[in-house]
Amino acid sequence: MGYSSLKSFAQGGTHATIHIMSADNGREIPRYEQLADELRTRMKKGVLRSGDRIPSIREMSRRSGLSINTVIRAYRSLERAHLVEMRPQSGCFVRPETPPLLCRQQQEAEAPEHRTASTSALWYEVHEDAESGRGVNPGMIGLDPGLIPTAQLNRLLSSVGRRFAGKCTSGKEINGEERLRREISRRCRTRGCPLTSGDLLITGGCSDALFLALMALTSPGDSIIVEQPFFTSALKLWESLRLNIIEVPADPRDGMDTALLSGILKGNGSGRISAMVIVSSFSNPLGSLMTEEKKREIALLAGKYDIPLIEDDIFGELSFSGVPVPLIKSHDRTGNVLLISSFSKSLAPGYRTGWIAPGKYMKRIRGLKMAAGNTAAVPVQLALAEFLEGGGFDRHLRRIRPLYRSRMEALTGAVQRSFPAGTRINIPEGGLVLWVKMPEEINALDLYTRARGRGIHILPGALFTLTGLFRSSLRFSFARADAGCIEAVEELGREIRYMCFQKR
Amino acid sequence: MGYSSLKSFAQGGTHATIHIMSADNGREIPRYEQLADELRTRMKKGVLRSGDRIPSIREMSRRSGLSINTVIRAYRSLERAHLVEMRPQSGCFVRPETPPLLCRQQQEAEAPEHRTASTSALWYEVHEDAESGRGVNPGMIGLDPGLIPTAQLNRLLSSVGRRFAGKCTSGKEINGEERLRREISRRCRTRGCPLTSGDLLITGGCSDALFLALMALTSPGDSIIVEQPFFTSALKLWESLRLNIIEVPADPRDGMDTALLSGILKGNGSGRISAMVIVSSFSNPLGSLMTEEKKREIALLAGKYDIPLIEDDIFGELSFSGVPVPLIKSHDRTGNVLLISSFSKSLAPGYRTGWIAPGKYMKRIRGLKMAAGNTAAVPVQLALAEFLEGGGFDRHLRRIRPLYRSRMEALTGAVQRSFPAGTRINIPEGGLVLWVKMPEEINALDLYTRARGRGIHILPGALFTLTGLFRSSLRFSFARADAGCIEAVEELGREIRYMCFQKR
Repeated sequence: MGYSSLKSFAQGGTHATIHIMSADNGREIPRYEQLADELRTRMKKGVLRSGDRIPSIREMSRRSGLSINTVIRAYRSLERAHLVEMRPQSGCFVRPETPPLLCRQQQEAEAPEHRTASTSALWYEVHEDAESGRGVNPGMIGLDPGLIPTAQLNRLLSSVGRRFAGKCTSGKEINGEERLRREISRRCRTRGCPLTSGDLLITGGCSDALFLALMALTSPGDSIIVEQPFFTSALKLWESLRLNIIEVPADPRDGMDTALLSGILKGNGSGRISAMVIVSSFSNPLGSLMTEEKKREIALLAGKYDIPLIEDDIFGELSFSGVPVPLIKSHDRTGNVLLISSFSKSLAPGYRTGWIAPGKYMKRIRGLKMAAGNTAAVPVQLALAEFLEGGGFDRHLRRIRPLYRSRMEALTGAVQRSFPAGTRINIPEGGLVLWVKMPEEINALDLYTRARGRGIHILPGALFTLTGLFRSSLRFSFARADAGCIEAVEELGREIRYMCFQKR
Repeated sequence: MGYSSLKSFAQGGTHATIHIMSADNGREIPRYEQLADELRTRMKKGVLRSGDRIPSIREMSRRSGLSINTVIRAYRSLERAHLVEMRPQSGCFVRPETPPLLCRQQQEAEAPEHRTASTSALWYEVHEDAESGRGVNPGMIGLDPGLIPTAQLNRLLSSVGRRFAGKCTSGKEINGEERLRREISRRCRTRGCPLTSGDLLITGGCSDALFLALMALTSPGDSIIVEQPFFTSALKLWESLRLNIIEVPADPRDGMDTALLSGILKGNGSGRISAMVIVSSFSNPLGSLMTEEKKREIALLAGKYDIPLIEDDIFGELSFSGVPVPLIKSHDRTGNVLLISSFSKSLAPGYRTGWIAPGKYMKRIRGLKMAAGNTAAVPVQLALAEFLEGGGFDRHLRRIRPLYRSRMEALTGAVQRSFPAGTRINIPEGGLVLWVKMPEEINALDLYTRARGRGIHILPGALFTLTGLFRSSLRFSFARADAGCIEAVEELGREIRYMCFQKR
């Protein structure tokens, strides 16, 4: 046993040494893991601290004598463990003190709550509270007006009004404006999904697209498959459409359990499962991101069992790293995948514009769209088309992604600081939501009632399932994460600690 | 028997005399009828010709020695017979040569057509044809861009974008913009319907509002009551919602048969009738206008049997005379009436903005709206609010109403000139559509196929019912009625005459 390399590197004024052991100690430890371990130890000892920059891959390779590939693998492994983060064009950094992470086993250890009857009333209450604008609402996703390129969009709106005057007021193409569809399809292609403008229909938002798809594809009494937990508003839609829900447990890291899904689809003898709905990237409420492998697998399952899979990509452009996130739709060889999304979370909710790429269901969806008339206002479609054509949307995303990352970190930090030991957080890699599991003894519905009395409106886990699970979980959104929100989270923390104290 | 009055009046350079007989000839002929008869005779003889102005009520009263009330009754009777028309602020005019009118008995004499299975395919085909922009389409309602105040609307859009920048991009109030709701409620009040802004929700159009209402109020397998004939797109919606349709025959003049309706509601023991949908003013496709009496009666029935009545008022602002048309909703004392409408037919289809006043179903409709996200783009809502506030909408309506009247007359004239004897036309008093019944031997579906081959796209009666009735009827729209449209109607006429010739 000996050191195969012993080199030093300068970091934050600290001269330190990397020791990489050769693989001669009986048990084969890959070199990248040794490097990762060494860095982990330094973080524990405080030699490398939160926010410190780790040497670039090339530099580390030079200093440690390890190959570029080995260093990359080591850094990736640390990134997966949420110990470091890669920031494009700036390097690799030690993350803020990493909070305890949530894994699926912990999530599922909860006993179901038997108070689900009130979920619907609760749902209305939280929405009315949000609408009223009273109090603080760290749960709801409300975009920060400061992050919307309002002046630019309104200039474009005014300009298209002048240049395409007649079209703005009288246009009513069923498919939606060709220029906008072209731009959206171009964006899909950069994410590996070979769509053209002819594959898309413009809608009045993402919920509208989901509504349209479910109306066209399901019959009352059918079952649909969703992730567990899943987002509230959709659950209200299922109710209106009289659909039965099959919730397939999702892993906080990478989403739906595909083995379980495969088994359910195999057993679908009655053929009553008529659709699946999945938020594949930065899901709501978990914030999970499906691996590309899982995405491929799910596309294959949809084709194999010939079931429509609605891929809701509403957060897909909001990866913190800016690295394009692949789509399930990219792996769709059979036309079974329907991609839906909108600009309401990534750009401007006021514009009410979304889209659907309905795959082989185009004719049915388009037919229903003709009857229901769902579409976005024409001037808004044209303004968005020009915003995308001119590169404005890309610039906007480059600006907001790192801001959302730091807001997520600020919110995570507040939870860590103020929530009691035993709290678990699922750190997302993008999107706008954060899922927090409090200690088992805390009932989120009790907390909801107490906090509401103090003007803090939270979203308890019960809103995201019909099973009664997630009784001690909460969804937060870091879309704003301003001082008021952070204070509210800290106050929640004090309340929870008090509740723990009472129970012990 | 003697002349009770004998006076002369000057008209269009012609000196003529009005003879009103006293009621002493055994059979009591009311004086107003005598005056009306006298005027009718003059029209027949050509003394009064199409477009001639008839003396004002006051003037006629003075000249004939009859009371103001008697003259009013005489003019009303001529108006009901479509011989004269009252134009506010300008007087009473002889109508263009009046075409043969359609009455319900003639309409129902038709034998049902047994080819209804193809209606759905036909529906898609006519919509795809309209969308393609190929050929001429005298059936579809396509607003004339020249009648849309595009420059003014786009100026407002640009201006609200500057003045309410943040709200335009980030607003997403569930109810819709307060200012717009206030203006819409004000318009309803001028029509005798005491709504306030709090009674309204803004939607992404009228179809959107209808969709929302039916989703919230009906369950699959329920029955809903509609007028017979009824508009195509709605029939597609019912299909998606798995609703059974009860078609209640409508009179071409004043709409749904309320006696029949009352009987059906009385017999609704199973309680499976869950809603009624009625276009109460200038209905589609008939163009019928319910009398205020009927409107009151229907509101009472909805309350008595506690059934939601969806009043679709999409054409309600388009009365040719400009006299405000009352609403069923005005007579709603129980909250059972839901009023829906939009700006898509009266102003600008590109703006995709409509509304719903859901009465006592507010909570259910609003709840579903929260989930489905249906609403209009915020900048467009604000621009519309300012257009209404500034009086622009009223000016616009004052401008287009007489234009639509003359377009209707031009289209009616073309049908009269070119369609064979036995053709009946239902002359509307507003709206955008015209219903024509051809001679019995003409099958509108055959005509559809023949005309389509020549690039003329028509809407056969089969599209407006599920019963197979209306096999020799057509719907036209006079929204454009330009030279191309008139020529197409004339060519249709030649084709029909040829078809008649073949059959005889």
